[in-house]
Amino acid sequence: MFIAFEGLDGCGKSTQLDLLFQYLKTAGKKVIKVREPGSTEIGEKIRAILLDRNLNINERTELLLFLASRAQLVEEIIKPALNEGYFVLVDRFADSSVAYQGGARNLGIENVEFLNTFATNNIFPDLVFFIDIPVEIALKRISKKNKDRLENEGKAFLEKVRNSYLYLSNKRENFITINGEKTVEEIFEEIKSHIQKFI
Amino acid sequence: MFIAFEGLDGCGKSTQLDLLFQYLKTAGKKVIKVREPGSTEIGEKIRAILLDRNLNINERTELLLFLASRAQLVEEIIKPALNEGYFVLVDRFADSSVAYQGGARNLGIENVEFLNTFATNNIFPDLVFFIDIPVEIALKRISKKNKDRLENEGKAFLEKVRNSYLYLSNKRENFITINGEKTVEEIFEEIKSHIQKFI
Repeated sequence: MFIAFEGLDGCGKSTQLDLLFQYLKTAGKKVIKVREPGSTEIGEKIRAILLDRNLNINERTELLLFLASRAQLVEEIIKPALNEGYFVLVDRFADSSVAYQGGARNLGIENVEFLNTFATNNIFPDLVFFIDIPVEIALKRISKKNKDRLENEGKAFLEKVRNSYLYLSNKRENFITINGEKTVEEIFEEIKSHIQKFI
Repeated sequence: MFIAFEGLDGCGKSTQLDLLFQYLKTAGKKVIKVREPGSTEIGEKIRAILLDRNLNINERTELLLFLASRAQLVEEIIKPALNEGYFVLVDRFADSSVAYQGGARNLGIENVEFLNTFATNNIFPDLVFFIDIPVEIALKRISKKNKDRLENEGKAFLEKVRNSYLYLSNKRENFITINGEKTVEEIFEEIKSHIQKFI
């Protein structure tokens, strides 16, 4: 089973991913977690380019680098793990490109969906948990951290990202929106309730 | 004016590109030459990943990395140069992906054409010179050099690449096939005859 966590930086998705990882492990399940971009040797090299603030990367290049990293991740880690019966948890996946590059950078949601299908060879998550928080809260939470290039975009950009996620939420059945203003425990209970039927 | 040189490694395209570069320069034209992948800081970083023989890059990742490099090259160098009236000469461009990844690696010629259109933001060469040589000659010529990963594919692969180029040659009017078994001088005369009307 393949599960992705999506949302604005600061929404709490990494915390929830870790909780689910521990929960599944404790339940005796085979489970791995991967992050995007990265997790493979090639992906980490690509990640270093993407996060280098000295490079002036154009938006199409940025998207294609994310896709290249994703293609390698699918072939090298996700596909083999799914074939061996693992739960695969990803911190961001294809829908991050749809929301950030397709929606917020105006490259076109349908364009990005086509590109994702090519890059992943049509392997997509069974469930996507979108942890939704208002942009004001995201900005407050990430202001405490060292902002990297992607977090440095401002309110209008993040509003577009959030709206793109909400658009996907209306469009797809396996895209589950969770109110990220609830407590960590409440959110995790909700996630567990969706996972229960699969374990 | 935007001119691409295509063909198998060993076909002589880089020699011809240099001759045309000097010829245009001598004629007082503004001209630049770029290579693919590479030519930008980001492109060179991508090139290093693509040519690293220790990495096991899957074929979709490979294509997406070429496209990422191409997108950056177009935005950073080709588009501004064309806007300033330069002749832009490229050693390989979009059709290398069509022939190598689309045709020879079976990712689909139409898929790759869509991806190229996205990556280049629909900026394509006015003329493509395809210097055609039989695979046997290509293999003889490159056996003298240190083979990099891309040259290390063997005869059947290169036959598919050549056939894909020949397919494009039938399909597109601005795709000019030149017999690469002629002498360097003869080939260059032919190239000049196609360029003449533009200078």
